[in-house]
Amino acid sequence: MNDVNVYRLPMASPDDVSELAKLIDNGVIDPKDICAIKAQTEGDGYSRGYSSLSFELMLSEKMGISRAEVAARIPMLMIGLTGGLMSPHYTVFTRKEVEAAESGVKRFSVGVKQTRVLLPEEYGTAIQVKLVAEAVKEAMADAGIDDIADVHCVSIKCPNLTAARLADATSRGKKCVSTNFAEAGSKAKGACALGVALALGEIQESDVTDEAICSNWNLYSNFATTSAGNEQVACKVLLMGNSAKSVSQYHIGSGVMKDTLDLAGAKAAFKSAGLKFDEVIPQGEAQRVATVFINAGADAMGSIRGRRTTMKSDYLAAYQGIFAKAVINAIVGAMIGDTMILASAGFEHQGPLGANLVAAIVKAEG
Amino acid sequence: MNDVNVYRLPMASPDDVSELAKLIDNGVIDPKDICAIKAQTEGDGYSRGYSSLSFELMLSEKMGISRAEVAARIPMLMIGLTGGLMSPHYTVFTRKEVEAAESGVKRFSVGVKQTRVLLPEEYGTAIQVKLVAEAVKEAMADAGIDDIADVHCVSIKCPNLTAARLADATSRGKKCVSTNFAEAGSKAKGACALGVALALGEIQESDVTDEAICSNWNLYSNFATTSAGNEQVACKVLLMGNSAKSVSQYHIGSGVMKDTLDLAGAKAAFKSAGLKFDEVIPQGEAQRVATVFINAGADAMGSIRGRRTTMKSDYLAAYQGIFAKAVINAIVGAMIGDTMILASAGFEHQGPLGANLVAAIVKAEG
Amino acid sequence: MNDVNVYRLPMASPDDVSELAKLIDNGVIDPKDICAIKAQTEGDGYSRGYSSLSFELMLSEKMGISRAEVAARIPMLMIGLTGGLMSPHYTVFTRKEVEAAESGVKRFSVGVKQTRVLLPEEYGTAIQVKLVAEAVKEAMADAGIDDIADVHCVSIKCPNLTAARLADATSRGKKCVSTNFAEAGSKAKGACALGVALALGEIQESDVTDEAICSNWNLYSNFATTSAGNEQVACKVLLMGNSAKSVSQYHIGSGVMKDTLDLAGAKAAFKSAGLKFDEVIPQGEAQRVATVFINAGADAMGSIRGRRTTMKSDYLAAYQGIFAKAVINAIVGAMIGDTMILASAGFEHQGPLGANLVAAIVKAEG
Amino acid sequence: MNDVNVYRLPMASPDDVSELAKLIDNGVIDPKDICAIKAQTEGDGYSRGYSSLSFELMLSEKMGISRAEVAARIPMLMIGLTGGLMSPHYTVFTRKEVEAAESGVKRFSVGVKQTRVLLPEEYGTAIQVKLVAEAVKEAMADAGIDDIADVHCVSIKCPNLTAARLADATSRGKKCVSTNFAEAGSKAKGACALGVALALGEIQESDVTDEAICSNWNLYSNFATTSAGNEQVACKVLLMGNSAKSVSQYHIGSGVMKDTLDLAGAKAAFKSAGLKFDEVIPQGEAQRVATVFINAGADAMGSIRGRRTTMKSDYLAAYQGIFAKAVINAIVGAMIGDTMILASAGFEHQGPLGANLVAAIVKAEG
Repeated sequence: MNDVNVYRLPMASPDDVSELAKLIDNGVIDPKDICAIKAQTEGDGYSRGYSSLSFELMLSEKMGISRAEVAARIPMLMIGLTGGLMSPHYTVFTRKEVEAAESGVKRFSVGVKQTRVLLPEEYGTAIQVKLVAEAVKEAMADAGIDDIADVHCVSIKCPNLTAARLADATSRGKKCVSTNFAEAGSKAKGACALGVALALGEIQESDVTDEAICSNWNLYSNFATTSAGNEQVACKVLLMGNSAKSVSQYHIGSGVMKDTLDLAGAKAAFKSAGLKFDEVIPQGEAQRVATVFINAGADAMGSIRGRRTTMKSDYLAAYQGIFAKAVINAIVGAMIGDTMILASAGFEHQGPLGANLVAAIVKAEG
Repeated sequence: MNDVNVYRLPMASPDDVSELAKLIDNGVIDPKDICAIKAQTEGDGYSRGYSSLSFELMLSEKMGISRAEVAARIPMLMIGLTGGLMSPHYTVFTRKEVEAAESGVKRFSVGVKQTRVLLPEEYGTAIQVKLVAEAVKEAMADAGIDDIADVHCVSIKCPNLTAARLADATSRGKKCVSTNFAEAGSKAKGACALGVALALGEIQESDVTDEAICSNWNLYSNFATTSAGNEQVACKVLLMGNSAKSVSQYHIGSGVMKDTLDLAGAKAAFKSAGLKFDEVIPQGEAQRVATVFINAGADAMGSIRGRRTTMKSDYLAAYQGIFAKAVINAIVGAMIGDTMILASAGFEHQGPLGANLVAAIVKAEG
Repeated sequence: MNDVNVYRLPMASPDDVSELAKLIDNGVIDPKDICAIKAQTEGDGYSRGYSSLSFELMLSEKMGISRAEVAARIPMLMIGLTGGLMSPHYTVFTRKEVEAAESGVKRFSVGVKQTRVLLPEEYGTAIQVKLVAEAVKEAMADAGIDDIADVHCVSIKCPNLTAARLADATSRGKKCVSTNFAEAGSKAKGACALGVALALGEIQESDVTDEAICSNWNLYSNFATTSAGNEQVACKVLLMGNSAKSVSQYHIGSGVMKDTLDLAGAKAAFKSAGLKFDEVIPQGEAQRVATVFINAGADAMGSIRGRRTTMKSDYLAAYQGIFAKAVINAIVGAMIGDTMILASAGFEHQGPLGANLVAAIVKAEG
Repeated sequence: MNDVNVYRLPMASPDDVSELAKLIDNGVIDPKDICAIKAQTEGDGYSRGYSSLSFELMLSEKMGISRAEVAARIPMLMIGLTGGLMSPHYTVFTRKEVEAAESGVKRFSVGVKQTRVLLPEEYGTAIQVKLVAEAVKEAMADAGIDDIADVHCVSIKCPNLTAARLADATSRGKKCVSTNFAEAGSKAKGACALGVALALGEIQESDVTDEAICSNWNLYSNFATTSAGNEQVACKVLLMGNSAKSVSQYHIGSGVMKDTLDLAGAKAAFKSAGLKFDEVIPQGEAQRVATVFINAGADAMGSIRGRRTTMKSDYLAAYQGIFAKAVINAIVGAMIGDTMILASAGFEHQGPLGANLVAAIVKAEG
């Protein structure tokens, strides 16, 4: 049986890994048990790398292994760029084998896998979709989850196209999905999301074509949240769900907010995770929330419920992803009285256009 | 008796005054009845002037008077800079005398006044506080409101210190509150808010000193929302409340959100305005909302409920006022399913530090 | 014969048209002679409209005609977004018939024309290229210029694709060049530039295909500077050159800076315009400069002379056009000791990629 | 005798220290000889820390010492925030003792010193000025420079006031210069600059008062460039000049540009450094430039030579320091055909208001 734990810890700056260091020093966390870290880092895009380096460095010292070994062992999913009431923090997942009998109750579990290294010309294609789908299936097995209905959040980090990679593909006579890196990145993220959808039965194998990626928005996963990084070479999958093989104290649930004002969708997520409430989450229940992961989608639209917004037109339009994250963080944060919850932005097949995907991990009762 | 009406109209761009023009052309609005316009304009600060000019131009043509006469007659309170789900729009207030008997029921009313022209050296001083307090009292009378408890929102636009005004004061041997225009502007806005507080009995005359302005944060008004503009020379007061002398179909209420997550404060505002609900506002009730004015305060703080935010530290910190408005717009907008509500930012004595002041105008029942 | 004058005037804000008003009131400028205004406006994109409206309003009052008539009569080319040492200002061109004999000397002249109204599906296509080329030819005739070698700067404002226009085209079963407005805008600007190139013999008719636009960067004009606006419906051409039929006191010249560090290209422009200097422009000669128009191209590249820049990668990358303008304004401004010169950004077939096109208007000697 | 070397190396990202690693691996640089690193990092403020950490990490591995030892040994002056044509890079200074006789020729030399740890209440005060002045004197000695006329650039990094430091001072009953961190930081940087001015005889001891700091702008150093960081506890001085005790191949010179258009000031700097040219720097001479350090001052002013700029008023005004650096980088870069030169911003007593301080290091002839 697996004992899976969840530690949400604040960071004072992108390189502040002191809270985790303390828990290791105190013996609360055995670094060998850490199976993934997912962080909401402030600052610009480089802060993600700064944060990763800081974790690798600290863990390599605590674990007595090289930084490269840390990096190979522990997937780090860094979500950059904060705004509004978003509070920089990270969530550490630990997992260890324990002796216990199955109780028939499903509890929180995580699975971690990665695809083989992808070729630049495969980024954003049906090949990537299928490789991701396989990795998701393997991550389910790793998490001890048999039923796709028990999967609630699949977080993926995939490689971005870069000038060097484009040159490499070109030199081998291959064509990449786009010579525009932003567009190529969008397609790579979309391919990951469709990979999740395929693995979880939300779309069919026949839906998966190169053309459908970032074009047929009727295809999507309600559980995928994907991002791309120049430093990645393969797709790293962090899958979260509930498993009969877990004795974790936590339980995960999820829900879809059809648009950013759809409070009912967020409430459904908290109820799915096990919170007990009617319309308003009482403080006692809110305190059971270990963390929340939201995939924000407001930046896909220039209006909401018939009202025009300036997200796509204003002089701050370049930061619309940050605004999309800030507003959903505020809305869901207000619901539980805590804005130290994670929001990432990404509309590419991650839920229907304009939707927000909410996954909540809560302490189980009793 | 006064019949006061409220028209909330969308704008496609800062110069789009077409919706009001249509209502005038249709005979729905007689432009002579317009007593104030309060707008949420997109774009940068210049859009406020662009919008004002567009209104003046259209109204001067419809009314057959000069633009200067329009400007002198109709206060225009332009709140610039939008983000997130904020939807550019404006609210037109009309007022006309009608024959009717007092019913004993208080209904929505507006009062409009302005102080005398201020000297630059008076900006941000106790003198401004007292002049504003007098104008607020007069605006109450203008609105037909006797009881300060019936006042729910006082919107003020005051002059900003400029290089030319500073030079003028200096040439006359006078000292302004600051040679830093941002600081001087803050103090001018703070003085306006304290003027409201003084008029409404929220502070005492003895509290009003030059030193207290933007320094003693225990002094504040829960009803003031103030802004400053280079184009202003006096303080323009738009006061909203309920009056026994009004036969408006509308009613106004207000509430204080102690911090940006304090949903109870926002609900209190809607209940105070007359909405009937327990925890969640049903769609039918939400449709009674004519408009909402929020004075946002999140940008006064670098944390919320113990969680650090990046509002004051990040590379987008210059836009923290926009983020403060975007998050409160999202939270309150989600409550009523509509983000075409106005948010202004201003922490200077406009509620306790970090609070949001919410005023809602709703259609009265029956 | 034409007498053409050039007035470069500062603006204190986007709506500040007071300097032109003064020259009209003083009798220096007869508003009937104004044939074009080209402005460098500060603020965001809306300031361009604000500025245009302010000019229209003032001129309609001075000229006793409607604003629509002003707009139809005087093309206004507003270049928005300033930064660095750029100084907001505008240049007014006047032209009037005078009795005089041809002297054999060519002097500064302007020609103004516009194409027919374009259909949205024609934006960014070979059809636009050809319509622009015709209008350029007509503008040459209007300017009294026979020889294409006498043309030094062709400034064009064309329509942008908007949601409404795309919908219109779609409703008629037509396809626009892109559903991405930024891409469509780029192609429209590119088509204008190729239209200039075609008219001036810089490319051949056979080069003009839909596919070549914003794709074959070997095709370009060294004299075109183009921009697009949502408010335009046709392409407005303002052509500047030297004509034997002009008795202007001014003379225009131009040069190409191959990259932003190519000082020799800028010097060639000043020499072509008639300044006398060897390496450094003496103050006396610099004072002969009436104005400078630069089409900046640095934002087309992520490096310069082998040095990587952060123009395309940094958190301010959304503003790279402003940085491109700010740096060329500084470099050329330093050469003449004055940064109140105009810079627009636009790489689409406006010179070779990464080049800056410099046109200088100077007072003729003697 | 000292042999001092200068290596200017490009970085592909804030953590890219590969070029230095290569030179160490090749044996070109012995890491024990590195006496300082000064970098121009892209990205936001956190990139400075990211870069420092990356250097410390790499050097600790190459040198077999701890990161803390690297940090204690090698001052790293990271200048963050790039724009325009600025090219991220770093300059490595090495110094080693060599057997040689004095030749009578002065060559490039560096001196490195730091003050004692400062108390938060000392930041931005006359005490800091005096401590810095002493450290500058010691750094001169360290560089083997006797004559203050041989000093050309003094780069200082000092501590910033932080919430924790303010709390510490307050808890001990001490008052800091400001509770506004931006203002406190300005004063700390100003105090450093005045410390340089005092050491170099540019001001008198009697000029040094708490009140003068960031208030009496007639006091300044033409050689100081200062910055502040939250991570610093003492003031680190990197002094550059020419010394009879150096056998370096390089020579340093400097000049003051009275304003950003003052090309003569920049030329004077290059001539002072030893370049031979009349008005234009020939390519062969430009190639002798090892690097250039500029302290930009354009952001201190809202106008230049009577022309209003939008530096202080526009929606990008928060980034005016970046624009100030971008424009001076462009102007001086154009002069030598290379924009991989360093620009920092800082107006506080670093030259007269609005001036730019230019220091150039060039390869000596023969």
